[in-house]
Amino acid sequence: MRASTYPLVDAAEAAALVLARTPVLDSEPVHVREALGRVLAEDLVAPSELPRFPSSAVDGYAIRSADGGGRLRVAGESAAGRPFEGRLEAGLAARILTGGVLPEGADTVVMVEDTEQEEGYVTVPAGHPAGRNFHRPGADLKQGELVLERGEELGPAEIGLAAALGFPTLTVHRRPRVALMSTGDELVEVGEQLGPGQIVDSNRWALLAALREAGAEVRVLGLAPDRPEPLRELVVEALGGADALVTSGGVSVGSHDLVKPLLEALGEVHIGRVKLRPGKPFTFATLPEGRLAFGLPGFPVSSLVTFEVFVRPALRRMQGHARLQRPRLPVRLAYEARAAGDRTEYQRVTLRREGQELVAQTTGSQSSSRLMSLVGADALVRVSPGAEGIPAGSVVEAIILRLPGE
Amino acid sequence: MRASTYPLVDAAEAAALVLARTPVLDSEPVHVREALGRVLAEDLVAPSELPRFPSSAVDGYAIRSADGGGRLRVAGESAAGRPFEGRLEAGLAARILTGGVLPEGADTVVMVEDTEQEEGYVTVPAGHPAGRNFHRPGADLKQGELVLERGEELGPAEIGLAAALGFPTLTVHRRPRVALMSTGDELVEVGEQLGPGQIVDSNRWALLAALREAGAEVRVLGLAPDRPEPLRELVVEALGGADALVTSGGVSVGSHDLVKPLLEALGEVHIGRVKLRPGKPFTFATLPEGRLAFGLPGFPVSSLVTFEVFVRPALRRMQGHARLQRPRLPVRLAYEARAAGDRTEYQRVTLRREGQELVAQTTGSQSSSRLMSLVGADALVRVSPGAEGIPAGSVVEAIILRLPGE
Repeated sequence: MRASTYPLVDAAEAAALVLARTPVLDSEPVHVREALGRVLAEDLVAPSELPRFPSSAVDGYAIRSADGGGRLRVAGESAAGRPFEGRLEAGLAARILTGGVLPEGADTVVMVEDTEQEEGYVTVPAGHPAGRNFHRPGADLKQGELVLERGEELGPAEIGLAAALGFPTLTVHRRPRVALMSTGDELVEVGEQLGPGQIVDSNRWALLAALREAGAEVRVLGLAPDRPEPLRELVVEALGGADALVTSGGVSVGSHDLVKPLLEALGEVHIGRVKLRPGKPFTFATLPEGRLAFGLPGFPVSSLVTFEVFVRPALRRMQGHARLQRPRLPVRLAYEARAAGDRTEYQRVTLRREGQELVAQTTGSQSSSRLMSLVGADALVRVSPGAEGIPAGSVVEAIILRLPGE
Repeated sequence: MRASTYPLVDAAEAAALVLARTPVLDSEPVHVREALGRVLAEDLVAPSELPRFPSSAVDGYAIRSADGGGRLRVAGESAAGRPFEGRLEAGLAARILTGGVLPEGADTVVMVEDTEQEEGYVTVPAGHPAGRNFHRPGADLKQGELVLERGEELGPAEIGLAAALGFPTLTVHRRPRVALMSTGDELVEVGEQLGPGQIVDSNRWALLAALREAGAEVRVLGLAPDRPEPLRELVVEALGGADALVTSGGVSVGSHDLVKPLLEALGEVHIGRVKLRPGKPFTFATLPEGRLAFGLPGFPVSSLVTFEVFVRPALRRMQGHARLQRPRLPVRLAYEARAAGDRTEYQRVTLRREGQELVAQTTGSQSSSRLMSLVGADALVRVSPGAEGIPAGSVVEAIILRLPGE
């Protein structure tokens, strides 16, 4: 048994190194029906203007403004999808419904509330100006306008806009395919009886959720075998259809740790230890054909924090996201954030509003085994290495995981 | 043709009325594998302490602290999942790996870096105190401790914690089943050729995305037929397996609008118009057996804003969420927010950081047809009815849709 010989890499350098080695995946078409959360692989330009025709914003009467104040004969109707036929001549009105085409010849719409109706005739107010109560062609969007940029994530409004412009499918980046496994002889499947020294494998289910939240398609492997050759066979087979391998456990320095030697044999290990707390044993390797391997530590909090710091941004780059990192907001510390010697620490905090400020409170003991320190955490506070730490009452930039709703 | 006779309901009253009529759905078991985003239907209490045994935090040697400074015989090994057999007597050490059980008799662990190893023996430093480098039973969690409260949404950490405690399945609220359709004679399916006066139905795809984001299971119906009897048959059949019906379009006052009369016939219409901009024609009805119907306006922005104000909180209540509303944060207005006469207006804004503040800029023309006003919107600014509006430079509470990442 010996201490690890991998150099301790600075946390920020390690994060940059991972991103520099992470490819953007190729693109594929997706129907607007299934486009939620996908990332555009090309700019979207309006192929036509919107609206494409002058359409009524209200229910009422289309008239010529010069006929204001008159009693007009109702010559027909323009309903949504059923336009008035022909041209509206002087002295005539057309009933018009919301979304209906403004008839040729008409230049304004009077709301039904402002009219007096009788059989076949309508009286409209005097002085009603031209151009009222209808949407002009191109008022919302000009032809050729850039409406969505590549790298944007598609939410409801973006999907609606693309559909409105007549795009049934959009070109988006492929989702990363990730093979996920846990390693460790002490692990048993959740729901099974625990023997002496055994613990439940919880990391696979936590990481599965984190991977899915980050947009990955995950193939969940079983618990990894504890002998080199079966482990190698499993990993090689799994990598056949995957863009990345994510493991947890087995990256410390113990004599039974098999992940690092396997990654050394299959590809190149770029990072074997990081000046990070929690998460010092984080391992990153590149494998043939642009595949990546992330060896996350086995302690539950360490695996989720290293996921957050290293894996999530990489998955976002793979999907072509313009923005790889979580949002940050200034928060006032309600506790003294002690520094962790020579390591950058990501402390877990809850957020609450106090006046105009967000106040960050620690989630308690920051032990790497204590999942309760991440349960309910709203943000991460990054504390640089050194002796000082950050005094209570300071305002720092917190990495926002979620904002508490109301 | 006549103006609507439904009373104009205050926007906040309408939102409260919807929630008061919205049931919480029953619960169902879900495996931790599929628990992401689900909401706990019961409190979760730790059935055992965590860790369940004293486990090493490092790779090193388990010793009796009284033996510090000595050259100790290595009596065996305690690896993760393979405990040392028997009791560690004075003068002995056990090799111990991260996660390994601290052997009975040992009271501390020395890191491998701090030892000198030779064949069968190890020399440990003098003065090494008891209680170092291992996790005590119950240090992370006591038996019987409340770890997750009902109403909490399950994310990666919560799922990991539940699995670590040995829960393969969790009791969560059922997801709402929603039937979704668009109405309007002017609508055609995206990708089809447009005739005169026709527009693409974009609302179904935008609302499908919004419903899925809010946790609903959606059955997408086609474009609604434009005759009362086929429409009625479609809706009655769809409601058979649904908790809620969401329609867009057909709720204005035009003579071809069929949704309100149908909802009147099937159940009770509680809201037929709202003092809201955009979204005045919003309609809400209750149907037999606790089902809900939301008639959203046909204009794209109106449909998404009324979804946000009325439907999303209702879907969250159905799923048992403790928090129904979006988070809010103070933002400084970079524009003058004019009020919309007698209606509450939800203005769409982008957010950017300036110093310690969030600054809100309008997304431009707030026309209810202009989806570009919602594309890229980060927040909604609620402007109360009245003449005043809100001057540029004011700080207001914005409803946060998303925070821009980095």
